[in-house]
Amino acid sequence: MKVLILGGDGYLGWPTAMHLASRGHTVAVVDNYLRRTLWLQTGVRPLFEVPDLTGRIARWAERSSDNIGCYIGDLRNWSFVEHVFKDFQPNAVVHYAEQPSAPYSMMGREEAFLTLRNNLEVTANIIFAVHEFCQTAQIVKLGTMGEYGTPNIDIEEGWLPIEHNGRKDKFLFPRQAGSLYHTTKIQDTDLLWFYVRTWKLCVTDLMQGPVYGVKTEECANDPMLFPFFNYDEIFGTCLNRFIVQAAVNYPLTVYGKGGQQRGYLNIQDTVNCVRLALENPAQPGELRIFNQFTEVFSVNELAERIATVGKQLGLNVKIKSIDNPRVEAEEHYYNPRHTGLLELGLQPNLLTDDILSEMLELALSYKDNVDLNTIFRSRKWR
Amino acid sequence: MKVLILGGDGYLGWPTAMHLASRGHTVAVVDNYLRRTLWLQTGVRPLFEVPDLTGRIARWAERSSDNIGCYIGDLRNWSFVEHVFKDFQPNAVVHYAEQPSAPYSMMGREEAFLTLRNNLEVTANIIFAVHEFCQTAQIVKLGTMGEYGTPNIDIEEGWLPIEHNGRKDKFLFPRQAGSLYHTTKIQDTDLLWFYVRTWKLCVTDLMQGPVYGVKTEECANDPMLFPFFNYDEIFGTCLNRFIVQAAVNYPLTVYGKGGQQRGYLNIQDTVNCVRLALENPAQPGELRIFNQFTEVFSVNELAERIATVGKQLGLNVKIKSIDNPRVEAEEHYYNPRHTGLLELGLQPNLLTDDILSEMLELALSYKDNVDLNTIFRSRKWR
Repeated sequence: MKVLILGGDGYLGWPTAMHLASRGHTVAVVDNYLRRTLWLQTGVRPLFEVPDLTGRIARWAERSSDNIGCYIGDLRNWSFVEHVFKDFQPNAVVHYAEQPSAPYSMMGREEAFLTLRNNLEVTANIIFAVHEFCQTAQIVKLGTMGEYGTPNIDIEEGWLPIEHNGRKDKFLFPRQAGSLYHTTKIQDTDLLWFYVRTWKLCVTDLMQGPVYGVKTEECANDPMLFPFFNYDEIFGTCLNRFIVQAAVNYPLTVYGKGGQQRGYLNIQDTVNCVRLALENPAQPGELRIFNQFTEVFSVNELAERIATVGKQLGLNVKIKSIDNPRVEAEEHYYNPRHTGLLELGLQPNLLTDDILSEMLELALSYKDNVDLNTIFRSRKWR
Repeated sequence: MKVLILGGDGYLGWPTAMHLASRGHTVAVVDNYLRRTLWLQTGVRPLFEVPDLTGRIARWAERSSDNIGCYIGDLRNWSFVEHVFKDFQPNAVVHYAEQPSAPYSMMGREEAFLTLRNNLEVTANIIFAVHEFCQTAQIVKLGTMGEYGTPNIDIEEGWLPIEHNGRKDKFLFPRQAGSLYHTTKIQDTDLLWFYVRTWKLCVTDLMQGPVYGVKTEECANDPMLFPFFNYDEIFGTCLNRFIVQAAVNYPLTVYGKGGQQRGYLNIQDTVNCVRLALENPAQPGELRIFNQFTEVFSVNELAERIATVGKQLGLNVKIKSIDNPRVEAEEHYYNPRHTGLLELGLQPNLLTDDILSEMLELALSYKDNVDLNTIFRSRKWR
């Protein structure tokens, strides 16, 4: 399969590229280094430096026989999109090319507009490019579990049959998100669902929960192949942030009551899920939706798990509830289904103490890099 | 009340401006003449010429004691938005400022992007402007019944309580639209609903059906005050198009089977509905939704009504089913509620034979203006 990975420099894009290449697919990555640019603008750094795409691809070529293709440019620019699609002629497109931070999208008007424009215009360009240049190619889109929010009913996988006044129909599961970033993902879903029906596109929308971890099989122990890893409030996901906080003796930043529950997954499972979706494609005219996570935890549960494992490593992990900068329910019902990817063959890597230990040890090995000032600056939603 | 009408040059924006001014509100209009620009680009003209906003406002001032304010500029441009909001200091904003044509939004990529960018960026700018400059002002947004599409269940007014596996919650009524234009209105709803919850905005979303007619009380019989009126396939609404087709002996263009049902309303009812919403505002943190139409008709029913009334006027009205350029159900269940605006006091002006006669006579008086070539050029959705 010829797979084009949009956002191929990202936390998940790069591991996905290596994984698909190692499984025999022909892979090219596309990126405009938006996330690295936003680091500069917001004054944050990842836990450790990683090479740029040229460097990563060269390193990967040294360790494998794979030549991963590379296109650097902005997918909001149609002439660039046209060049990439005509040149590579993909039969599958994996779409990670979005401004990925909820807190960033809530910093102000400029940040909101960058998120809105980037995410919707890239998604729209991909739809038009597939329609124009590779009509039968499948699109695998990274959505987010955050699109559903925290409803008081069980969360199904994307769709909900509804009976109302004695009549029935099936609809997209109701969506109401907690940030502008998550709202743009809902808007992406609206766009994809319209064009799936109208142009018979083949789309899989992966509603992913927060991802944790660094290592996938392919990067093994070569830091030159690691994905980048953020521990700051803006770009770091919850578990990754806590791990670094624990390593540098910074009290774990639990927002409010800490009863917020989410579905988490290991970065190894992310790359497996994307591959399983690609190797078992959606049909023309189908918007197939999977909930992509393996376990549900509350923020408090994660904090306590890390405190326990930290103690075994001789760390004195403190937990501190802080005034919640977000607007969200801090205690709520949460029961999302996640059977579709298991049925395709996913073998989950659950969050064991060994995995937490390994993550903590990695963070400890880089702890001199941590800028304590960027861990929490209280970027408020209101 | 100080009411800012965004898109105040439009088919509905201008009659709304006169209506609110005549009822004692202080009114200013904002427009960038987008629709007039798109007429030029797509080669269509309205049934009769109307003055620009300066001319309309001068004419209205001659006939009343009202001075309607006027700002010409693009609401995608933040510095213009900032100027307008600081200068006028509204306590209510009526938002019509959208690319309003479904067929236009389906013509190609450029047209799709203009629609997506214009509609979402203007809506986002309005949200940020109200939050920044007039936090307690209410927003009255024109949505569309087309957001719901044609589900197989009764359509409620915006919201649907759902019971699932023994638990309950209330959600936005499921939305799945039939064009990119309608999809951008769903995306507007997503955006408004997120910021209503997060910033406690006061929003009324009016899910309006296709509007017909020319005359409101305020324009009376002065053609200088008429709204513009399109009869072409791109900018004309269904009933308005049929009326002009009947007047020029062009077979009524029924798309496919003609069983498509929609909720229609008279232009007089539109201005009354918007005023009723403004005078009975939503609460802070409320997204209040009304279905804004008065009667449901199928396309075939409208065509037959016009044929009957045309016969009384000596016209030989032909009806012709043509290959449907759109992707839509041509026969479907349709039962939308519309009680909220009636409860606020709306007195509907239903589609009587007298109203059809009056519209036909107006069209006949301008029939020499009609360019037959622009009536139907089959802009296809696929």
